[in-house]
Amino acid sequence: MIDSLRRYIPVLDWGRTYNRKAFSNDMIAAVIVTIMLIPQSLAYAMLAGLPPEAGLYASIAPILLYAIFGTSRALAVGPVAVVSLLTASAIGQVAEQGTAGYAVAALTLAFLSGGILLLMGVFRLGFLANFLSHPVIAGFITASGILIATSQLKNILGVSAHGHTLPDMLMSILGHLGDTNVVTFALGVAATGFLFWVRKGLKPMLKRLGVGPTAADVTTKVGPVAAVVVTTLTVWWLDLADQGVKIVGSVPQSLPPLTLPGFGSDLIGALFVPALLISIIGFVESVSVAQTLAAKKRQRIDPDQELIGLGAANVGAAFTGGYPVTGGFARSVVNFDAGAETPAAGAYTAIGLAVAAVALTPLVYYLPTATLAATIIVAVLSLVDFSILKKTWSYSRADFTAVTATILLTLVLGVEVGVASGVAISVLLHLYKTSRPHVAEVGRVPGTEHFRNTHRHTVETDPTLVSLRVDESLFFVNARFLEDLIQKRVTEGCEVKNVVLMCSAINEVDYSALESFEAINHRLKDMDVGLHLSEVKGPVMDRLKRSHFISELNGRVFLSQFDAWSALSLPTR
Amino acid sequence: MIDSLRRYIPVLDWGRTYNRKAFSNDMIAAVIVTIMLIPQSLAYAMLAGLPPEAGLYASIAPILLYAIFGTSRALAVGPVAVVSLLTASAIGQVAEQGTAGYAVAALTLAFLSGGILLLMGVFRLGFLANFLSHPVIAGFITASGILIATSQLKNILGVSAHGHTLPDMLMSILGHLGDTNVVTFALGVAATGFLFWVRKGLKPMLKRLGVGPTAADVTTKVGPVAAVVVTTLTVWWLDLADQGVKIVGSVPQSLPPLTLPGFGSDLIGALFVPALLISIIGFVESVSVAQTLAAKKRQRIDPDQELIGLGAANVGAAFTGGYPVTGGFARSVVNFDAGAETPAAGAYTAIGLAVAAVALTPLVYYLPTATLAATIIVAVLSLVDFSILKKTWSYSRADFTAVTATILLTLVLGVEVGVASGVAISVLLHLYKTSRPHVAEVGRVPGTEHFRNTHRHTVETDPTLVSLRVDESLFFVNARFLEDLIQKRVTEGCEVKNVVLMCSAINEVDYSALESFEAINHRLKDMDVGLHLSEVKGPVMDRLKRSHFISELNGRVFLSQFDAWSALSLPTR
Repeated sequence: MIDSLRRYIPVLDWGRTYNRKAFSNDMIAAVIVTIMLIPQSLAYAMLAGLPPEAGLYASIAPILLYAIFGTSRALAVGPVAVVSLLTASAIGQVAEQGTAGYAVAALTLAFLSGGILLLMGVFRLGFLANFLSHPVIAGFITASGILIATSQLKNILGVSAHGHTLPDMLMSILGHLGDTNVVTFALGVAATGFLFWVRKGLKPMLKRLGVGPTAADVTTKVGPVAAVVVTTLTVWWLDLADQGVKIVGSVPQSLPPLTLPGFGSDLIGALFVPALLISIIGFVESVSVAQTLAAKKRQRIDPDQELIGLGAANVGAAFTGGYPVTGGFARSVVNFDAGAETPAAGAYTAIGLAVAAVALTPLVYYLPTATLAATIIVAVLSLVDFSILKKTWSYSRADFTAVTATILLTLVLGVEVGVASGVAISVLLHLYKTSRPHVAEVGRVPGTEHFRNTHRHTVETDPTLVSLRVDESLFFVNARFLEDLIQKRVTEGCEVKNVVLMCSAINEVDYSALESFEAINHRLKDMDVGLHLSEVKGPVMDRLKRSHFISELNGRVFLSQFDAWSALSLPTR
Repeated sequence: MIDSLRRYIPVLDWGRTYNRKAFSNDMIAAVIVTIMLIPQSLAYAMLAGLPPEAGLYASIAPILLYAIFGTSRALAVGPVAVVSLLTASAIGQVAEQGTAGYAVAALTLAFLSGGILLLMGVFRLGFLANFLSHPVIAGFITASGILIATSQLKNILGVSAHGHTLPDMLMSILGHLGDTNVVTFALGVAATGFLFWVRKGLKPMLKRLGVGPTAADVTTKVGPVAAVVVTTLTVWWLDLADQGVKIVGSVPQSLPPLTLPGFGSDLIGALFVPALLISIIGFVESVSVAQTLAAKKRQRIDPDQELIGLGAANVGAAFTGGYPVTGGFARSVVNFDAGAETPAAGAYTAIGLAVAAVALTPLVYYLPTATLAATIIVAVLSLVDFSILKKTWSYSRADFTAVTATILLTLVLGVEVGVASGVAISVLLHLYKTSRPHVAEVGRVPGTEHFRNTHRHTVETDPTLVSLRVDESLFFVNARFLEDLIQKRVTEGCEVKNVVLMCSAINEVDYSALESFEAINHRLKDMDVGLHLSEVKGPVMDRLKRSHFISELNGRVFLSQFDAWSALSLPTR
């Protein structure tokens, strides 16, 4: 009873041994992560098309809930770039940005996504995430990075533009290029340049100055705060808002409010598929970060329990004014590097963000949105990585095709079509590959009991006996291939009297393959040719015995290929 | 050059050796098939919602074209029940039955279907048909048989009804039950009863009378002609048309007309998916009949060339007033049993049907549609076979699930949704099965170089060395499973110093699995555990060498598992 509770509520496990040292380590990590998260949360909320406070709210309750139900000790849950983009794309189809309906749709999306994750966790359906192959994920993340960066160009230029695909966005921005606000543009370019320098040039400089590597890392990650402070002060000092620079404006000073998602069947129907997509993509991103960090301390995460943790976090977001969340890569690494020992670090971060939501929001009144856009652009461009094209090209053309299609379709047709096509293409390519399994005609290595491919080795054969080794499990996609192959082989050589299928590499024979076996058996019988099996694995044989195939077999089942050879080959060999 | 022409136009091959004996055999078969086809063609045209002559026209040019391009010597091409149902369902969505638009839609569907088949043939895409697993086809055919029989009840009752799903049809028939025409009903029931008796009782009786089995078979197949003649004479003699019995009426006396399919993008867009479905289902049905018959004479058909033959037949149907066609089971078997030797038999059948279309159509003026309905009902009920449920239940639960879902969804949601869901479900179930491959932890059989599953055999093991044998190729669907499994195994046993993956059953490692290998390698390195490979197959190793994995491997690659054991296990074994 206690054990099963501990499985579902991991806090009961690590909470009992929590001590002062862990507390102080967690506290230090929490302070650093909180500072980093404030601008990031505001920025991702803007990316999702939501008011800035939604980003803060989405980082408070979800972090607390994940700390209770999650299994990773370092994962930091909250708004992330790709999920924010998916959110904007999904709810942009059901409501107008800035309306009450838009915010409710965001809550509903978080609620659905949480519900889906919880159900997947309870029914242990985490394997569904495996349908996203690594190349499809890599292609999707790269294309999303480009889409996100492009979507923020309008905030750097100070123009209004729209669209959810690359051509739409570019056309819209080009159409409004004449409206560019020069002051906003100057601020945006300066902030972007500074943030790029923080990312690329600051760490080497700090190292030269003798700062330790961890401290240098952390300083680099909280760099955006400096950009926020300087640009906010500049806008305030020079009254730039009067010159058309868009600012964040007043943000309510409040703890996360109690909110209710919408339960209308129209809304749920329209958001279900996007919610499923967000759940699976968020889960995959989160689990791969969590596994990487856990391995560094020889810990383990439980993917099915992670579904519960992330599901609880999203349901929490739905009722506290947030939007869909997941475990973020950057924030989790900072949390880990800053020394977080337990999920309690997350809880302290939540407290820090709650304090910020209550006390610090007036300070961001003059923060220009161009700075937030710069934060986003610099963050997401690190996601863009075309090296996957080169790597898959040299390793496997099928994987290369899947990546390329995912990238192009995501950019041109949008995130949902892109990722769905990527999954469909990788499944089709995989099935195509298994549809033509390797089948070797084997002969006897002289003087031994071994049998090898006749095309590769010098072996004894007998023209009346065809021995075929099938190097793949047999199922509906490749069953008819075997029928055709045997029909072809037997009609080519008129002397053939016996066919032996060597089944040593067959792990499964599904019902379609069974019927193909039966068809082969009948056809060979009509041609007066025997069909025999050899080296059938135990479980496969058990299953075949449940059908009539074995009793109707126009031949025998041999334990070894050598037995078959001894019984069937002509004595003149 | 000649050889490649012969590949694409098989008539050049068999035509050269055509002789008098083959001619007389083909001629006899053609006469029998022609007599059988006349009522069948009229009936299937009615099932498709088209005027009766469309059925005759669809049997003339297509047969001739298949005789030139097809590879089966006995296949008889023309309208068949399931494709007629699919046609009615597809064009019922774009046009009203009885309008000119309806007939044009049928031509367009045949043209699209022909085009798709030709493209699939040229690009050798016949393997796409393999996505229809045997259980899905069996379930779909059974459900289609029920739908077709139900759709004809209205003609037996003499009422008007509509609908393309079982619930719709039944509700519609029930609603019109009060309008039943008693005379029509009596005729329909009598014809149905007679045809059932021909099918079940006539053959044993003929055999008792000393008629040879082939002659008895053929008599049975042409039985419907007797029903046609008797009911037509009855209606004419008793003036039953005046009592509300629906009759075929006047059918134009003409050779197949030259017609043009519609090329509007709306029409083509609406019919493309149904055409794809008709192509694939027709191809699967046709190829399985052709293969079965070819095997009986130790002949072979070429599935990719069959695509060309069927494609040409459908394009021919589109330009000669027909509708989608394929190779039919019943007519092909009759053709074969009647002694057809070459595709020329088909050409003579086409001539016979052309004569019928020109000269005999006035004779069917008084033919009641109830008789045609009876012909259809008796023909399709032989397709209904629920034994597939029992067979798959005892053989494999996954296949059982796929059949059941296909049957239910086809009946309740219609043919297109039904078959598409069947394909999706079988692919998902297959991937689910491969997503959790069998992985055995192996140990050394004492005193030998063999390694076996530690759970099944008494073997030597070493607590610092974990040897895992993976019994499946590794690809995206199961790659993460292996990551989790190894992570779990290594974090459980703190003494583990080395992990060996025994790769003897791995035929492929895709890019996702490569990245999983890399992740496993990095994580084990972080835990100070070595990762080694043994018994890697040649092609897999060649591919792995194209990546950085082998050079970054935190361990070694051993030729055999015994080498790995010798090098890594502690000397205290």
